[in-house]
Amino acid sequence: GTEQIGGFGALIDLKKAGFTDPLLVLGMDGVGTKLEIASEVGNFSSLGYDLVGMCVNDVLCHGAAPIAFLDYYVTGKLKKEEAAEVICGIAKACKEVGAALVGGETAEMPGVYSPKQWDLAGCCIAAKEREWPTLPEFDNIRIDDVIIGIASNGLHSNGFSLVRKIFKESGITFDKPTPWNANITFGDELLRPTKLYVKPLLQLVTSNQIKALSHITGGGLLENVPRILPQTLSAEIDCKKLHILEVFKWLQKAGDIEAKEMFRTFNCGIGMVAVLDPSKASFVLAEIEKAGIHAYEIGKICKKSESGKSIKLQNIEDVFDFGDTGIVVQKRANVAV
Amino acid sequence: GTEQIGGFGALIDLKKAGFTDPLLVLGMDGVGTKLEIASEVGNFSSLGYDLVGMCVNDVLCHGAAPIAFLDYYVTGKLKKEEAAEVICGIAKACKEVGAALVGGETAEMPGVYSPKQWDLAGCCIAAKEREWPTLPEFDNIRIDDVIIGIASNGLHSNGFSLVRKIFKESGITFDKPTPWNANITFGDELLRPTKLYVKPLLQLVTSNQIKALSHITGGGLLENVPRILPQTLSAEIDCKKLHILEVFKWLQKAGDIEAKEMFRTFNCGIGMVAVLDPSKASFVLAEIEKAGIHAYEIGKICKKSESGKSIKLQNIEDVFDFGDTGIVVQKRANVAV
Repeated sequence: GTEQIGGFGALIDLKKAGFTDPLLVLGMDGVGTKLEIASEVGNFSSLGYDLVGMCVNDVLCHGAAPIAFLDYYVTGKLKKEEAAEVICGIAKACKEVGAALVGGETAEMPGVYSPKQWDLAGCCIAAKEREWPTLPEFDNIRIDDVIIGIASNGLHSNGFSLVRKIFKESGITFDKPTPWNANITFGDELLRPTKLYVKPLLQLVTSNQIKALSHITGGGLLENVPRILPQTLSAEIDCKKLHILEVFKWLQKAGDIEAKEMFRTFNCGIGMVAVLDPSKASFVLAEIEKAGIHAYEIGKICKKSESGKSIKLQNIEDVFDFGDTGIVVQKRANVAV
Repeated sequence: GTEQIGGFGALIDLKKAGFTDPLLVLGMDGVGTKLEIASEVGNFSSLGYDLVGMCVNDVLCHGAAPIAFLDYYVTGKLKKEEAAEVICGIAKACKEVGAALVGGETAEMPGVYSPKQWDLAGCCIAAKEREWPTLPEFDNIRIDDVIIGIASNGLHSNGFSLVRKIFKESGITFDKPTPWNANITFGDELLRPTKLYVKPLLQLVTSNQIKALSHITGGGLLENVPRILPQTLSAEIDCKKLHILEVFKWLQKAGDIEAKEMFRTFNCGIGMVAVLDPSKASFVLAEIEKAGIHAYEIGKICKKSESGKSIKLQNIEDVFDFGDTGIVVQKRANVAV
């Protein structure tokens, strides 16, 4: 449904794209300070993928299918190889989610940006049929609805200011292997691309299996889950049930970060949270697992208590435990090298 | 037709917005190095207006009406007053063209950006009814069609790398009054906001008065006019007819810039070029003038000569003449202070 129509813009025919009565959902985002890590490591391949991921996972939370993507790539001095790596990542991710990469703006701004400096932002145009559910379905969320956690692929694109601080203070370099897997470096681990949830989740959304989706970005579970709940209800999540990825356990120890801060900064292993009717949980979990992504129950919807909190993380203090992971952190300046 | 639906994105109902069978036209752009001037002058009010202008004037060239806008505002350290000034400019321009400012991303990226550094990009979602003409109408442009020039408001958002070089070399500061108007400073002149052409031109486009529109941005008349012409035709523009704004005359003298370079870098006073049937010229010109914007014939469409050039600028060497403007430039380091 997409056509290039000369230099000034791109044309999208929503009917040709299969929509009969579409509403548009729009999302814009950047990749944040993750790109500083990419620059230091010299790996520009995953950032484009991250950029698309940040945007399409957002519009998915409103029940929309990505149809087109535009990017803004800016630098002080355009290096074609690096730009190509970035754009390739964007194109690859767009293809995976069925969005047309309809162009955007590549800007060389000497003076404003230093030659090595660059940035990346993107805009996703998504559409949903009017008859599809519009998520979050605030009026439809009930006490005892199930909350499921859908696995992330690592840090995705959030929390990197804190990550950089931790690495700077510990003196660890990105080329060192991680203590939990000698075959990958910290650089590899930190630059893992953002998981794209469109394929495994969109069909479940349009077929009314899911009442709400929350993309766990900056602010973590603590700030993103309350955004999808009605005023009177609260999310109760049992941290013991969470499969915290090793990298988050390591960051917590290395940075000596409070558990609450961890859940306010990182996704901690949960890239997306879904709210659904208990009767649908087993089907939905099985479908997501079929798509190769781990998904599991992590809590339920409750009446909001007098304290008025929209989210309660139970057993939060027990969760960061290195007991059986083999990671021992002796002192801060000396961790895991 | 626009609704905020929680934190992850914005919802747009094209039917409520008045469209029955819409096609989408998308445009993304930045403001380029003009923002360096804004930072130096400390005036952040016009940049948002420029950003919207760059995007909506682009989608207008395809005959589409802006319906929504998203912005990406990034800095090393968020200063609320400056951000507010920028966003206000964006909102004001959106209101003027009838687009909903549906959000976007405000990013604080310490480390990646220095505290004083910032950037601005935006994405415009526009729509056109399927039955509206899709510009440029390559198959409909004929020999002897009229080319009209529609006045710009100054530099708009292009050519600022060269502007900064000229000011740096001449040693002139932005707080000095311009030689052609003692009531405004160079800073005021350079930061004039981009003219928005949606209101005066959209109605003319949808009522089939105009065959093609070219937004004169980076590349000037020389590079932007050929983009709207079919392979076999060429644009003949008589430079003697152009109303070159004083600021461009001054820049040409101060920087000792070749006329051709001027027309490849700046809009030189023409913000938009339209191609139309000769029979419609007087009506179209009158309508644009009614909207308070100067518009006039600058050339016509011709058969492409053997040289294969898509644009010919006649009388190019006579055009930058300070004879009767009172601007005398004695030597480069000493101009017009």
